[in-house]
Amino acid sequence: MKTFGKEDIKEMILTQSLESLEKLLEEVHPVDILDVLRELEDEKYSILKKLPNWLVADIFEEMDEDEQQEALNLFSELDQFKILNEMSSDEITDLLGNLEPDKVDRFLGNIDKEDAEEVKELLTYEEDTAGGIMATEFIAIKENMTVKETLSYLQTTGIEAETVYYLYVLDSSGILTGILSLRDLVISSFDTKISSIMTTSVKSVPVHMDQEEVANIFQKYGFQAMPVIDDLGEMLGVVTFDDIIDIVRQEDNEDIYRLGGLSEGEAVDGSVMDSVRSRLPWLLVNLITAIIAGATVGLFSSTIDKLVILATFNPIIAGMGGNAGTQSLTLIVRGIALGELNKENAKRVFLKEIIAGLFNGIAIGIVVAILGLIWANKPVFGLVVGVAMILNMSLATVVGYLVPVILKKLNIDPALASAVFVTTFTDVCGFFFFLGLATMFLKYLM
Amino acid sequence: MKTFGKEDIKEMILTQSLESLEKLLEEVHPVDILDVLRELEDEKYSILKKLPNWLVADIFEEMDEDEQQEALNLFSELDQFKILNEMSSDEITDLLGNLEPDKVDRFLGNIDKEDAEEVKELLTYEEDTAGGIMATEFIAIKENMTVKETLSYLQTTGIEAETVYYLYVLDSSGILTGILSLRDLVISSFDTKISSIMTTSVKSVPVHMDQEEVANIFQKYGFQAMPVIDDLGEMLGVVTFDDIIDIVRQEDNEDIYRLGGLSEGEAVDGSVMDSVRSRLPWLLVNLITAIIAGATVGLFSSTIDKLVILATFNPIIAGMGGNAGTQSLTLIVRGIALGELNKENAKRVFLKEIIAGLFNGIAIGIVVAILGLIWANKPVFGLVVGVAMILNMSLATVVGYLVPVILKKLNIDPALASAVFVTTFTDVCGFFFFLGLATMFLKYLM
Repeated sequence: MKTFGKEDIKEMILTQSLESLEKLLEEVHPVDILDVLRELEDEKYSILKKLPNWLVADIFEEMDEDEQQEALNLFSELDQFKILNEMSSDEITDLLGNLEPDKVDRFLGNIDKEDAEEVKELLTYEEDTAGGIMATEFIAIKENMTVKETLSYLQTTGIEAETVYYLYVLDSSGILTGILSLRDLVISSFDTKISSIMTTSVKSVPVHMDQEEVANIFQKYGFQAMPVIDDLGEMLGVVTFDDIIDIVRQEDNEDIYRLGGLSEGEAVDGSVMDSVRSRLPWLLVNLITAIIAGATVGLFSSTIDKLVILATFNPIIAGMGGNAGTQSLTLIVRGIALGELNKENAKRVFLKEIIAGLFNGIAIGIVVAILGLIWANKPVFGLVVGVAMILNMSLATVVGYLVPVILKKLNIDPALASAVFVTTFTDVCGFFFFLGLATMFLKYLM
Repeated sequence: MKTFGKEDIKEMILTQSLESLEKLLEEVHPVDILDVLRELEDEKYSILKKLPNWLVADIFEEMDEDEQQEALNLFSELDQFKILNEMSSDEITDLLGNLEPDKVDRFLGNIDKEDAEEVKELLTYEEDTAGGIMATEFIAIKENMTVKETLSYLQTTGIEAETVYYLYVLDSSGILTGILSLRDLVISSFDTKISSIMTTSVKSVPVHMDQEEVANIFQKYGFQAMPVIDDLGEMLGVVTFDDIIDIVRQEDNEDIYRLGGLSEGEAVDGSVMDSVRSRLPWLLVNLITAIIAGATVGLFSSTIDKLVILATFNPIIAGMGGNAGTQSLTLIVRGIALGELNKENAKRVFLKEIIAGLFNGIAIGIVVAILGLIWANKPVFGLVVGVAMILNMSLATVVGYLVPVILKKLNIDPALASAVFVTTFTDVCGFFFFLGLATMFLKYLM
């Protein structure tokens, strides 16, 4: 067993003649070559230009969008066409999706006609749907073939589809009637008919299904690939598990970033300007909400002026509301993303959140009531602190449920703005409940 | 193409005779049957007990841990052994991992000897490592076999491994020397030697590697399966992509839950008591930190007593520090989880965070300084607010970097306690900077 480290690959590329290099690099995964190229900085493009087109295409498929664009521009248009011709239709589509329309047309006029047709069709689908992530390369067979005929067919056509896990059985009008895994093919005797070993209860995804829903189905069933069909049941392409892992990570990351107040694009080792661009807009939105919260406190200045201990308990009540709201919000945002919160259980979950919020509110309320009583040495103060805490934490939990659910109904990503809404709500309400109650009962508190 | 809805399956199970049922259910995915069983509530176990053992085993593999335990206990010990015998070694191991040791021994004494040996070995690996998630069923071949010999071998041995994507080429001492995808097997002519089509630069994972790292490697290379080897290079098992999707989701969810102050186990449609158990401990920890923050304000009571507008700006300064800290924290926690923050770039990232924090702090600081100036109608007040904001937001960003990095060094999950630490820090420091500066310059502010 050979394994190539970064150093080995670097030395290979830098010292070997091109001919021997091509042979050697067949054994190396393109993503490893890309890693080396990234480290080589200045030399990377001169080396990339020396590599054979098929390998450049493979490396391109591992690059992120910005890298791809930058690298593509290094080649002459003729070479660009050659590289694109080595790529699969879904990868070409992703690449072209970022170019200007007239450049796209020029590309499509210069690559294989069949590929061009497929890419044109793929470009019509929304990026975040099954159609947007599917590849159009798949192996179609007929149900009256035998295992041996199928194997011969596979051997002679020399399948191009880079990732083949299943063979798809189509009838004469392209309708998907069955599916056969390579595993079932290779364990069946040569004269077995495909019709007798294929599965006819095929799970497929409609071409316009949202990619997050597609990912949830993959996760549920553990498939390697799923066929994509149109409204008539005609098979259009396949979505494969490797796209799904990327989507799961991407969607999860989006949720985490949005809940944390970052823009999706920010990379951990990006530039200072990227960070500022990602974070400052959120901070400005948060500033507005913080000012609203501060102004609420300002409304009660005269009460605080008379009873300065209120300023001490202020952050405790607002902060705990924020925590309770964030907990509920996090659970609901994930429940929506993973499809675990649905119409059937929505009411039950809402009721559960209300009761849990009330329960936690009472538990924390009792603790701070006792704390308030001791600190201020006045039972009424303890009561005011406790009641404000219970009100704020219960409401926070309810708001933590309602905000993402309402955003979802409005077709806005629930993770996007939920955190800002929820903490503004809990801050403002916390200050309002606490300072309002204190103002009402001020004569008993002095 | 047939598709079975929940209703179809329910009717099938409830009305068909067992014989015809067994044939029909071969076409249905076990997870769909489980969905129906879940809805049937009371009847579910009586139906489960009627199904053939192979199908019960398949359904078991789709259940979560609690369901498995509950369902398993419905069967006599003899039936339990029969069901376990239908399951793959890694699934048996997961199931047995939750039982008492003496029960485990009884199980191992009553299932296939070969399986029992494998399970015993699997039980020795940590749950969250490559060894803990691998299956020991895989197809080993020799490099001097031809394609036809390999196909005949596969046809006669009737491979049991439920998910076969690759064939593994081992030498006589079990050392992994090459790998062959089913795809490359089926497209090669019958007399091709395995040695001429296998890949010899095999990516494998060591048996003790952490599952999160394994998932990152899968994602990087897009493999369907990876071999697991011991220190000598001997092949022990395979990890497959379907486990990886589950791990990615599980690890991402863990991060999101921990950042949001929830315990990992909480389900969106769980019980009230589950919610309270998941959230109350975190709320109590947060209460302590909120009290520390409140006490910091309390230290400056006499200053606030003289200048009540400070109470209005207090939550603005603390809150913005919290937001800046959370942004930085979120980025770093994810960077660690995805392996994107490493030794090579740590220093550069830290420096970037410092500068970005300072930049955002100055931007927000200028805005609130102007706001403070207008609100209080005193330039010095604006200056105090602005400087406190810059100090707090810069420090918050640095703390958002340092806390998860230090927790990681201490082998504590960075997502676990980071949020609590960071917000305590930003609250206390925010109040301290702002009220401290105000106290110092009090005579210019009155």
